[in-house]
Amino acid sequence: MKNQTLLPFLFLTLLFSCQDTSEKTTIIQSPDGVLKLEFILSDTGIPQYTLSRNGSTVIDTSALGFNLRESGVLREGFTIVSTQTGEVRESWTPVWGPQKEIQDHYNELFLELAEGGANPRKLNLRFRLFDDGLGFRYEFPKQKAITEVTIMDEYTQFQLTGDHLAWWIPADYDSYEYLYNHTRLSEVDTAGMNYGIENRPDRFIANPHAVNTPVTMKTDDGLFLSFHEANLTDYAGMTLGIHPGNLMQSELVPWADGAKVHAKAPFTTPWRTILVTDTPGALLTSNLILNLNEPNQIKDVSWIEPMKYTGIWWELHLGITSWSLQQQEGSWGDKGGAGHGATTENAKKYIDFNAENGIRGLLVEGWNQGWEYWGQDTLGYFNFYTPYPDFDIEEVVKYAKSKNVALIGHHETGGQADHYDSQLEQAFKFYHNLGVKAVKTGYAGPVTPTGERHHGQYMVRHQRRVIEMGAKYQIMIDAHEPVKQTGLRRTFPNLMAQEGVRGMEYNAWSDGNPPSHTCIIPFTRMLAGPIDYTPGIFDITLDKYKPDNRVHTTLAKQLALYVTIYSPLQMAADLPENYRGHPAFQFIRDVAADWDDTRILNAGIGQYLTVARKEKGKSRWFIGSITNEEPREFAITLDFLEEGKTYRAGIYKDGETAHWKDNPMAYIVTSMEVKKGDTLNLKLAPGGGQAVSILPVE
Amino acid sequence: MKNQTLLPFLFLTLLFSCQDTSEKTTIIQSPDGVLKLEFILSDTGIPQYTLSRNGSTVIDTSALGFNLRESGVLREGFTIVSTQTGEVRESWTPVWGPQKEIQDHYNELFLELAEGGANPRKLNLRFRLFDDGLGFRYEFPKQKAITEVTIMDEYTQFQLTGDHLAWWIPADYDSYEYLYNHTRLSEVDTAGMNYGIENRPDRFIANPHAVNTPVTMKTDDGLFLSFHEANLTDYAGMTLGIHPGNLMQSELVPWADGAKVHAKAPFTTPWRTILVTDTPGALLTSNLILNLNEPNQIKDVSWIEPMKYTGIWWELHLGITSWSLQQQEGSWGDKGGAGHGATTENAKKYIDFNAENGIRGLLVEGWNQGWEYWGQDTLGYFNFYTPYPDFDIEEVVKYAKSKNVALIGHHETGGQADHYDSQLEQAFKFYHNLGVKAVKTGYAGPVTPTGERHHGQYMVRHQRRVIEMGAKYQIMIDAHEPVKQTGLRRTFPNLMAQEGVRGMEYNAWSDGNPPSHTCIIPFTRMLAGPIDYTPGIFDITLDKYKPDNRVHTTLAKQLALYVTIYSPLQMAADLPENYRGHPAFQFIRDVAADWDDTRILNAGIGQYLTVARKEKGKSRWFIGSITNEEPREFAITLDFLEEGKTYRAGIYKDGETAHWKDNPMAYIVTSMEVKKGDTLNLKLAPGGGQAVSILPVE
Repeated sequence: MKNQTLLPFLFLTLLFSCQDTSEKTTIIQSPDGVLKLEFILSDTGIPQYTLSRNGSTVIDTSALGFNLRESGVLREGFTIVSTQTGEVRESWTPVWGPQKEIQDHYNELFLELAEGGANPRKLNLRFRLFDDGLGFRYEFPKQKAITEVTIMDEYTQFQLTGDHLAWWIPADYDSYEYLYNHTRLSEVDTAGMNYGIENRPDRFIANPHAVNTPVTMKTDDGLFLSFHEANLTDYAGMTLGIHPGNLMQSELVPWADGAKVHAKAPFTTPWRTILVTDTPGALLTSNLILNLNEPNQIKDVSWIEPMKYTGIWWELHLGITSWSLQQQEGSWGDKGGAGHGATTENAKKYIDFNAENGIRGLLVEGWNQGWEYWGQDTLGYFNFYTPYPDFDIEEVVKYAKSKNVALIGHHETGGQADHYDSQLEQAFKFYHNLGVKAVKTGYAGPVTPTGERHHGQYMVRHQRRVIEMGAKYQIMIDAHEPVKQTGLRRTFPNLMAQEGVRGMEYNAWSDGNPPSHTCIIPFTRMLAGPIDYTPGIFDITLDKYKPDNRVHTTLAKQLALYVTIYSPLQMAADLPENYRGHPAFQFIRDVAADWDDTRILNAGIGQYLTVARKEKGKSRWFIGSITNEEPREFAITLDFLEEGKTYRAGIYKDGETAHWKDNPMAYIVTSMEVKKGDTLNLKLAPGGGQAVSILPVE
Repeated sequence: MKNQTLLPFLFLTLLFSCQDTSEKTTIIQSPDGVLKLEFILSDTGIPQYTLSRNGSTVIDTSALGFNLRESGVLREGFTIVSTQTGEVRESWTPVWGPQKEIQDHYNELFLELAEGGANPRKLNLRFRLFDDGLGFRYEFPKQKAITEVTIMDEYTQFQLTGDHLAWWIPADYDSYEYLYNHTRLSEVDTAGMNYGIENRPDRFIANPHAVNTPVTMKTDDGLFLSFHEANLTDYAGMTLGIHPGNLMQSELVPWADGAKVHAKAPFTTPWRTILVTDTPGALLTSNLILNLNEPNQIKDVSWIEPMKYTGIWWELHLGITSWSLQQQEGSWGDKGGAGHGATTENAKKYIDFNAENGIRGLLVEGWNQGWEYWGQDTLGYFNFYTPYPDFDIEEVVKYAKSKNVALIGHHETGGQADHYDSQLEQAFKFYHNLGVKAVKTGYAGPVTPTGERHHGQYMVRHQRRVIEMGAKYQIMIDAHEPVKQTGLRRTFPNLMAQEGVRGMEYNAWSDGNPPSHTCIIPFTRMLAGPIDYTPGIFDITLDKYKPDNRVHTTLAKQLALYVTIYSPLQMAADLPENYRGHPAFQFIRDVAADWDDTRILNAGIGQYLTVARKEKGKSRWFIGSITNEEPREFAITLDFLEEGKTYRAGIYKDGETAHWKDNPMAYIVTSMEVKKGDTLNLKLAPGGGQAVSILPVE
């Protein structure tokens, strides 16, 4: 955070200026002049905005407002009390991330609005227009008319200019674990999708014509749009309803009682964000969402450490071992008599493997008591600080420490957030006292209190408590079945990675993820933040343990995912025995988990993606290139390398006859010397990929 | 040693029988009947032998005898006092080695001979005829006529039947570090060879028409012969003089005073050995020399551990750092101002690298005081237990231990064996107390006492003292500039590996070793025992540090050497920075250092060699295939794999355009599933190789 001084804020203050309040229209431009935001107060006092790019409308006139339980609809009859505009330009240094330094440059428009009358309701709006998009939020100022307030609806509109092609998942209030659909907006409809979630208490799609965010679109004019939110704090998660006439409108995830948000003025909503770019790659390097979050609040960040990790995890999904010590029929952890996975002995086996391979983290799932009841209608069965008797956690942590391996703790709640809350501080103290510096949380099951939803305000609050508890006890968080990321990792850089995606595990026990899936999620889910996708499965076909399941990529693509999927916690997910002696494992050993620079070398949503990243503090580059079902060839220019330096490129590519379906494990590793400006020819098999390590010759 | 019971010895005793002593000819056959040894006492009482294979003479009538300083020539006028023959068949388990179990099966002929007269000199002969060759030795029994004796010459003849093609190095009394010559025996002549050793006090070729052993030959009938000795104990090393008429005769390395051996009856000479095979590969799997040594004398062998190791070593040869702390002009350790290599910090860097890669051993050279005078005419300059002040050896050992890395100590003597002797026990105690379990010794320089030779009885005794001191203090020995190996590793399995070869280091500062060199030494030098060749140089061209020098192989061939060259101490010799991130390094990480089984898949002396070895106690196989300057293709049948098991073959091969000279670092790594009976097609570039790891799919 060294670059973030008071100066920019001074700059901000000096530049901001009040304007004549009689003007009902205000226009601001992005710093580069490409985007233009127009705020219009309609004749009936409805706050509205439009967004255009190089003169072409991207968002047509769209209204803003609310429905409040206490005082009714709040979206017309406003007058403008004041208008301020200004420019902010600063840079800041993230604790970790895909870039060393982040530029934050925008023009802002701030409006104070008020209804008429003696005790008028007041509502302020703040727009920040960046070169690559817009963020805006509602600010409820302190006022007499609105104190404690219940938001029943937020009416934020995004009036699109066409029936765009969209990559979307349903607006499930409980889960983001879906394959992306690719349809026109007008075709968003989950009615016939046969998701098989009718009887699942942990899935709920209220509106078949709505989507979760981020949702990404391509206009027929070739623009790329992505809609999401930033800094989701003490509010409900936003889904987007698709209405006739290309209108999208916010639909907040409700509480059990139907209310959307309980708040007390003054408060602000999360930022509603729209990325607008002319290439799909530019979506990936946008920092708009991070820039709309508050600066880092954690002073001592020395314990925060991006890392690679292994886990007693894939063997659980393959059914080799079980989460629970005692098998219990009907429990999700029941593997039909398989032995318990999280034993002291097994953990030491993984620790030895990690030590041999310089892999820092080890996740152990199923270490604590209660798994016998997971997935059953039983309350409060998990104990978050009592190990099973066959897991000597003190011994494991000690042994790990002796080999420079860090245990990653695990708190599966089964969705029982209230129960977790009741043990939260004790559970974090327990890990803290052991010296454990990271915890994977999980909410695989229906939320309790019953009726609350994974993405509602209840869980937003809960997840924040967990993050803050982590900050207090110096524990990094890797949240599974989370509330979506909205950039909070800037403020709490102990929030490392999240799931909230249909990850690798689906390949172990479902139809799995088709080759295109990993070519879509970088442009959709990953725009929210790091994904704990858990790549690196080398035994693609799972013949031994799951002959009816498999991974739908080539082996080389598994390697490329370490670069194309960004995460500061990057798992080497396969069994140690599938890595030992495997020449391709060298790439996983080498690849970094934290970066100084990221370049998108080519990108086609759902089709292909090639990313180059430079390791944090080193002159080492890594390239990952992936494709969907189509084979592809790319010529990549290494113009990002340092002039005059010689590098050795380790090339991990698909075998000549590789194919995700027929011949997924054929690969070739080779190497060559490269210099700045050289061209690398990549050849990707159907469903394949290529990974390249570019290490300076010392 | 579990299989070695008393039973075979009983068997031996029962079968042996005394024969009529009037017979002047005795014939024994090898157990399979292929070889036949005939002992003939000539009419003048000269002991003679012949050796034939399938009826064809291999060694024609050859006389045996001595010249003794005290009593003159001892080789005629003998009568046979007794003759015994018998068969021995047993098996024994080596502590380590290329095979799990060794068969020892031979027919023996033992003769007691005596001169005539009142106080006759007595001399016994013992012949052991194996299926693959012959060993025989002289035994001086306790007698009045010979007590303390000075052998001035040993007249052991090998009357060859033709002017065979031989692979030979000169009979230098001080060094085996030569390229092998390939000529007819009659062409053995070092006169014009321009070795540039005229002024070197540590090189001495007395007879230009003589060779060091092992010397290997091919007869025009297609037989392969190799001559060497076994159990060289308290005796002088044997060279072989080549005389007209295809006669070879032993020439022992002299003491400074010209005597060859000082002995006291009773004593036995080393075994003189002749391997006779019809394939070159069969030479490599012979256990004849080991079988002619005494059983293991070390009871507790738990501390003896074959391993791979790295070293602060190649950087010394490249001149990046220096052995000596203070540079001294004219010292062999002087690198013209380069910093000291063996610092605590540098050692820790290597330890970290080893820990990352599961490499157990770390050799540190230049850690102790005295290197400033190395190579100068100064007496007793090395101190073997006092580290340089910048090398905190206790800290290094402690740090290494914490990472499961074992320090390999180093005792360079500069050839000053007497000086080393004076500190020997203290030096070994020092390492023992630190917990160091291996020492590399070195004798790079002229022997002191001045006039003694590296291969004479003085040094044979010295080297034995070092080995026994190692056994006493539980320290493994890796002897450089050694007395040749003669199988003592069976008796003292702490004698792990030896140099005594023109190893990798020559590539750093001479014309280097041509591609054929590593295709010759398995069939010559390696028949004596394990070679500490120090393979694994990945930066073949040495452009940065030694642009005028280079390695003369491809990179893939460097990997293959880990299998084709046998050693229980196998170095990964290159700089850590040349390994880090290198995909081909996985092979070095994987390859074993100890074996249950060894198969020679093909072999052509000086041309090519393909070896498969099975890791000790595991189902993992490794294949190495190398060629000389010629490209080659081989089809290898994997008939040695276990039936019904699936393996993953990691294939490390030359790149399509690889060439030892023009494109040495082009390689390809790939993998495939293989089963017993599958065929692997190997393609080797000129000067190239291929390495394959075959790991069971678990």
